[in-house]
Amino acid sequence: MTTRQRIQDRQQRLATHLCVGLDPDPALMPPALEIEDFCVAVMEATAPFACAFKPNVAFFEACGWQGWKALEVVCQAARGLDVPLILDAKRGDIGSTARRYAEAILGRLGADALTVSPYLGADAVTPFLEYNKDALSYVLCATSNPSGIEFQGSSDEGEVSESRSSDRLSARAEDAPSAGPLYLRVARMAAGLSRSFGNVGLVVGATRPEAMAAVRNAAPGLAWLVPGVGAQGGDLAAVAQQGPGDVVFNVSRGILYARTDGEFAAAAAAAAKGWRDAFNDRR
Amino acid sequence: MTTRQRIQDRQQRLATHLCVGLDPDPALMPPALEIEDFCVAVMEATAPFACAFKPNVAFFEACGWQGWKALEVVCQAARGLDVPLILDAKRGDIGSTARRYAEAILGRLGADALTVSPYLGADAVTPFLEYNKDALSYVLCATSNPSGIEFQGSSDEGEVSESRSSDRLSARAEDAPSAGPLYLRVARMAAGLSRSFGNVGLVVGATRPEAMAAVRNAAPGLAWLVPGVGAQGGDLAAVAQQGPGDVVFNVSRGILYARTDGEFAAAAAAAAKGWRDAFNDRR
Repeated sequence: MTTRQRIQDRQQRLATHLCVGLDPDPALMPPALEIEDFCVAVMEATAPFACAFKPNVAFFEACGWQGWKALEVVCQAARGLDVPLILDAKRGDIGSTARRYAEAILGRLGADALTVSPYLGADAVTPFLEYNKDALSYVLCATSNPSGIEFQGSSDEGEVSESRSSDRLSARAEDAPSAGPLYLRVARMAAGLSRSFGNVGLVVGATRPEAMAAVRNAAPGLAWLVPGVGAQGGDLAAVAQQGPGDVVFNVSRGILYARTDGEFAAAAAAAAKGWRDAFNDRR
Repeated sequence: MTTRQRIQDRQQRLATHLCVGLDPDPALMPPALEIEDFCVAVMEATAPFACAFKPNVAFFEACGWQGWKALEVVCQAARGLDVPLILDAKRGDIGSTARRYAEAILGRLGADALTVSPYLGADAVTPFLEYNKDALSYVLCATSNPSGIEFQGSSDEGEVSESRSSDRLSARAEDAPSAGPLYLRVARMAAGLSRSFGNVGLVVGATRPEAMAAVRNAAPGLAWLVPGVGAQGGDLAAVAQQGPGDVVFNVSRGILYARTDGEFAAAAAAAAKGWRDAFNDRR
């Protein structure tokens, strides 16, 4: 089974589109706990409500080589729980170097999926697609952070800030493949790679509801990973209604740090269940 | 001293603008050598000809946590040799996560500089600038890989493929700060951050001589890191003549793998000396 099929299978069996983000920060965690023990406890508690887990590499690298070793433990635990693991790495480098990142993330760590940056063009994405045909590479498209629009939204049409412009642009997209804001050109690049490789997805922020219809038109059928729900204030209803049928939405801090005492795992499970239901209620 | 001052000081004392790239690939290295031992031997041999070293994180991560531990050894060796260390990480994530990457790279590893991706806008760059005012963050601008131009060159003016368009665009840049190809808008963003923080540089590929004049006009006074010389066929004369006075050009494979037997370190030193001289001859 491909990663996408595994995610879909879990979405159907457990009726959940929630991805639990693993951003272990010692400053926020219960004291005297190793980051891998914290993550594994959260994973075990939230697995029944999660279609995927998403560790963000930054939080592991910040702990040095011990952090990287902890990340290996987390990846292994996901395999033990049979939950697809998306490594949030946002890597992007030239071809020969991208191959080494693919080896690190899809090979050594054995992740099922990862996030990649499109700034260097298709060269920087293709090595991940070639490395493992079953894995899934989510290309950063319209990101959830406030300054994401800065370059992603820029085009000869100016910034896209309301759904009317979005509709207009999505109509244009079919006529003029090189036109429109950067995030739509990235979406079309990803769609092209998907036609060749079949294992490409997109990162579309929940804080960017105005972009969603246009992205779906520009790259029909691609899987989405949606950050920005929860602490970042994204629009869960827009994700549920405008995302593709197998959309995956991520919540990190709202689950990990629901409580920061000895009850953190039970609180994380309750928060995960709440997010699962909140999404399902909005479908 | 800031990282930029340390690089300039070394450029003047040793008359070299060469940065030695450290991309240790076990498939290309002399057999039965650990990657950290290989890198340290190359660093010791080439230090007299180098104004900086640049390990690319991908090659270390591909070796798992042992690779990250090797990277810590390499960073420590650079400090021992008192050679500025630029970590080629191309990181780019939202603010709170970027702070963890800053902790990983400028904190834990103690790198003097790093490369960052601008796809997520200023949010993703600023945490590195704030973390250490003396460190240097090189923002990816016009990268050296063939598909770099795919998005970086796109604008309402179309792709920039000859110096005439470049001159025209650089003239426009002063009139209309949001116009021109993406790499010029990135250069202007970096210039703006540099006015606030003073510790921003740019990555400009040696394979993109047509972009150089426009980038310099858009971001006057910023430091440059120039990859793409050597295996990628970049234009060394253009770098020497069009880069800023303290430009740093990087060569990796042409030095690391000059010989792949027991004489690799001496061969690396000879190759480094050759590249140093080749650049100086073209100034």
